[in-house]
Amino acid sequence: MGDLLVVGSVALDSVKTPFGQVAEALGGSATYFSFAASFFTTVRVVAVVGEDFPGEHLSLLKSREVDLSGLQVSKGKTFRWVGEYGYNLNEARTLDTQLNVFGNFRPVLPDALRKTPFVFLANIDPDLQLEVLRQMARPRLVALDTMNFWIEGKREALLRVLAEVDALLVNDAEARQLAREPNLIKAARAILGFGPRIVVVKRGEYGALMISDSHFFFVPAYPLESVFDPTGAGDTFAGGFMGYLAKSEATDVDAIRRAIVYGSVMASFTVEDFSLHRLARLKPEEIQRRYEAFQDLIRFEI
Amino acid sequence: MGDLLVVGSVALDSVKTPFGQVAEALGGSATYFSFAASFFTTVRVVAVVGEDFPGEHLSLLKSREVDLSGLQVSKGKTFRWVGEYGYNLNEARTLDTQLNVFGNFRPVLPDALRKTPFVFLANIDPDLQLEVLRQMARPRLVALDTMNFWIEGKREALLRVLAEVDALLVNDAEARQLAREPNLIKAARAILGFGPRIVVVKRGEYGALMISDSHFFFVPAYPLESVFDPTGAGDTFAGGFMGYLAKSEATDVDAIRRAIVYGSVMASFTVEDFSLHRLARLKPEEIQRRYEAFQDLIRFEI
Repeated sequence: MGDLLVVGSVALDSVKTPFGQVAEALGGSATYFSFAASFFTTVRVVAVVGEDFPGEHLSLLKSREVDLSGLQVSKGKTFRWVGEYGYNLNEARTLDTQLNVFGNFRPVLPDALRKTPFVFLANIDPDLQLEVLRQMARPRLVALDTMNFWIEGKREALLRVLAEVDALLVNDAEARQLAREPNLIKAARAILGFGPRIVVVKRGEYGALMISDSHFFFVPAYPLESVFDPTGAGDTFAGGFMGYLAKSEATDVDAIRRAIVYGSVMASFTVEDFSLHRLARLKPEEIQRRYEAFQDLIRFEI
Repeated sequence: MGDLLVVGSVALDSVKTPFGQVAEALGGSATYFSFAASFFTTVRVVAVVGEDFPGEHLSLLKSREVDLSGLQVSKGKTFRWVGEYGYNLNEARTLDTQLNVFGNFRPVLPDALRKTPFVFLANIDPDLQLEVLRQMARPRLVALDTMNFWIEGKREALLRVLAEVDALLVNDAEARQLAREPNLIKAARAILGFGPRIVVVKRGEYGALMISDSHFFFVPAYPLESVFDPTGAGDTFAGGFMGYLAKSEATDVDAIRRAIVYGSVMASFTVEDFSLHRLARLKPEEIQRRYEAFQDLIRFEI
């Protein structure tokens, strides 16, 4: 079993959907990622919170044996995000972002973390993503998430870090924007030319698509009758994906296929409730049951 | 091998996409459907054209041994549609519709066609769809396509014909609109309550989803680097779907899964060129190869 490191955000999210709302609930990319991945392997979080960060949230992460030795507690307030979703639940409307301590975040890795073999660079400034990589000792597999904000505003830095990662996880629009190509498959192939050997396109309710030089793989989203809040689904997907790979210490294409299904499984739980509420009551046997349900969802005979 | 009957439109389409254009090319739901289905079984077309309909188009359909004994040739001009697509190719913008002889179409089935076991009611006025069904002698499987125009304007008639069909083929938005329910899975379940035992949701570049009382099945769209024109993809899907079922004379859930894959295979060819150009040069062995590529696209081990 290989260990897994994530650098990203830990946040307090206020979210409203047509099905309810939460105020200052636990959120952030590193949070969703690490909680999901903790069902598979040991996860180490590199992030920052303010002095106001509630102890109960730390306890929740510790209850899953998430390693918080890389979590900085800085003078000031924790990163806050306020957003809402309409009925289609596809895209969040950001109402407010307060970076707070996250605005001055400089990831510094404790020595004990520098040799972690599996690394996920969640969606933060690509310069910081590169700073983290520079502190690592030859990780076995590095995956990276990013967004339109960095693709537009920090393209050069993003291309520098992309050249050093194995897998990119983005959505359709981000892949097209990054490659400057409207056809998704051509866009993914162009991105393979930037460095990664795998591009995973996250499509929300439409599932996920993996493209490598020699393989395509597609998995649908799990058909759910009740979706409450899509916040964190992408980071949860990444947590299941990287968690499974780290656990199995494998990076071959068949392992990557299974990892994408585990990512989809974990994401399908997160959206069933607000914040990490569904993950917090998730039982390992539910993961395996839903993995098998995915198999049934797509099987057909030649 | 069971025979297959389709009622729908035969049209002359003028289509512009970012990748080219065609003027007065062969189109229409019954055309795409029957041409695609002709690779699987004998297809009988019930439709209408005007006196101006080019003989070469009839020859093309006859070359696939499509039975045109139910094709009426009426005084006047053939149905014409003019549309264009933007870069995302997801939705056509209709620039002009001239119903012409299609405006007075009353489907009358020659006696020899009334006992056809597999029936596809393409997207036409639900009153006409019901008229066709009334002329059939206990078909084994009936599938129906419809659109927002009829869901809004002829809901009662649509519900009457839905009560008598086995399968409904629609897109996401149509399923939600018909069921008046934003969650797609709940919407599909509500539609099952209207009569059909199968709902197939066509999602364009995102694939297709089948929902029955006891099964889900999902198939992605084939990842294509060059999509020229999505016109007719839905009807081609239906042609592959119904063609396979008619050929295998099967209606069990495993056959329906395979049929949905064959529908996706056929649609993936249609979009590779304008009008029926790609289907016209399609070889049967290409169908089987792409079917196997679909298997590879989704396989993963438990």
